[in-house]
Amino acid sequence: MAMALLFRSSVDSEARWKPQLNQLMPGLEVRVWPGVGDPADIGYALVWRPEPGLLASLPNLKLILSLGAGVDHILCDPHLPHHVPIVRLVDPYMTAAMSEYVVLQVLRLHRHDLDYRAQQSEGIWRELEQKNATERSVGILGFGALGQDAGRKLKGLGFDVALWSRSEKRADGLLGYAGGAGLEALLRRSEIVVCLLPLTAETEGILSRRTFARLPRGAVVVNAARGRHLVEQDLLAALASGHVSAAVLDVFRDEPLPSGHPFWRHPHIVVTPHIAAATNPSTAAPIILDTIRRFEEGRPLLNRVDPARGY
Amino acid sequence: MAMALLFRSSVDSEARWKPQLNQLMPGLEVRVWPGVGDPADIGYALVWRPEPGLLASLPNLKLILSLGAGVDHILCDPHLPHHVPIVRLVDPYMTAAMSEYVVLQVLRLHRHDLDYRAQQSEGIWRELEQKNATERSVGILGFGALGQDAGRKLKGLGFDVALWSRSEKRADGLLGYAGGAGLEALLRRSEIVVCLLPLTAETEGILSRRTFARLPRGAVVVNAARGRHLVEQDLLAALASGHVSAAVLDVFRDEPLPSGHPFWRHPHIVVTPHIAAATNPSTAAPIILDTIRRFEEGRPLLNRVDPARGY
Repeated sequence: MAMALLFRSSVDSEARWKPQLNQLMPGLEVRVWPGVGDPADIGYALVWRPEPGLLASLPNLKLILSLGAGVDHILCDPHLPHHVPIVRLVDPYMTAAMSEYVVLQVLRLHRHDLDYRAQQSEGIWRELEQKNATERSVGILGFGALGQDAGRKLKGLGFDVALWSRSEKRADGLLGYAGGAGLEALLRRSEIVVCLLPLTAETEGILSRRTFARLPRGAVVVNAARGRHLVEQDLLAALASGHVSAAVLDVFRDEPLPSGHPFWRHPHIVVTPHIAAATNPSTAAPIILDTIRRFEEGRPLLNRVDPARGY
Repeated sequence: MAMALLFRSSVDSEARWKPQLNQLMPGLEVRVWPGVGDPADIGYALVWRPEPGLLASLPNLKLILSLGAGVDHILCDPHLPHHVPIVRLVDPYMTAAMSEYVVLQVLRLHRHDLDYRAQQSEGIWRELEQKNATERSVGILGFGALGQDAGRKLKGLGFDVALWSRSEKRADGLLGYAGGAGLEALLRRSEIVVCLLPLTAETEGILSRRTFARLPRGAVVVNAARGRHLVEQDLLAALASGHVSAAVLDVFRDEPLPSGHPFWRHPHIVVTPHIAAATNPSTAAPIILDTIRRFEEGRPLLNRVDPARGY
């Protein structure tokens, strides 16, 4: 008997996904949590932030599919069955959406948009000093599919872009820095820093006082990765001192961002509700089903996660 | 005796320009209005919005150089000496700055940024429906250096871009519409319209009720060209009806935008103080001096204006 797929997302609805999966792969039975039925039937789990222990409760689970590019929401499960392969979702549609977000925010900061919006609210007509993108350095933390696509698009607009990754990486036309010393060097040259890293034990809290101190004075920060990359108090302190002049945040330690949190009303922080790159069922479902077919046919899996590395 | 150049800008300062011109062409005497001296000495006029009659008062004027891409500020002079050639300033640095502005504003509107900023001010965490750039149509009015560069950069981000010009134009990889019927067709397909036209008798007031009515409901408008392209009351009416959902305006009939003007406080209008593409002396001065050398050596002038056409 063919095995069933269990769908479990804490943020997304069955209604958006089940029709897409059913249409593309009619032979695949899709069950939606909490309607697991007999746990022994479940061969595939398509999940976003599953309850700790849920995956371990499925005795015949063969493959875990993340509903997003990150897998920190899976790896944090203390009962994660370590023999089951995990695949990240890498969808060009989501990658493009992330780049739209990053380019919008980088341009906003580069073009002094927060100041101009504040001027408009005061009825002030005043031109501010402006340089061109070619004279503006952008540092991207992360050299994966997201970092490379955003890097290429920012370069296309003229920005002086460099990317950083833990281990040495190369990609045509992109300047890369690697490792601890590379991070220092990248930060020193970056007027605008964009975080697109996976969340791992090594990257948690990377946007900290220590990192901010290495940026040139007046630098700005964009976090579109995970809330736990940022040490919130360190950002508030860096903004208060003026060393960091503004930040754009799409992700937070607690989401939704709690009411009364100082980020909501901060004049130099832009808050968006985790919307940089939403999963898109019509483009993601074929990629997910291709992964299942590859697995069933014994072909190599793409974007398989190394749990030790964390991505 | 070599002829002198008269510098006259109503918005820009001698201090930014004279050192650049002197350094690059030490043999050229630069005089700054109102210090004209003997009007018979002036062979070249480098101007932004010169007083009507000023150019006609220079009996030996050989060449008029605009300090900007547009020349409406020169052609509106009723005493303009029609035998003197006029050259527009086409500076890749300014073109790139304009594209930065256009891409920022298109992305802002595409990504519902005005709504998200309003939500932040209310402490509201709510994800809005979002499509990708590939699913968003952008229509650019203008197929010159500015329109083409912005069009290419928006295409690079995935947008479904088309450009419109009065007469048929072609450029690699860009979809073009022309003439009256072409304008209708372009408007019907454009969720986002960007005006980058020269201001001429034909284009004045082109952003009117008639134009807005042809856009799909909820369309948005960006004007980075000239204030007189827009019929202000028609925009306010289209916003009030919801047919146009937002506008970004960098230029206005009266600049600075008068205090108390309804645009300042409109929740769906972004006002910026004519900052999309400021002239940049360090890159423009060599282009201006090259024009003078071409003229003196009898070589063909680049970007020469046809006064009958208006650009």
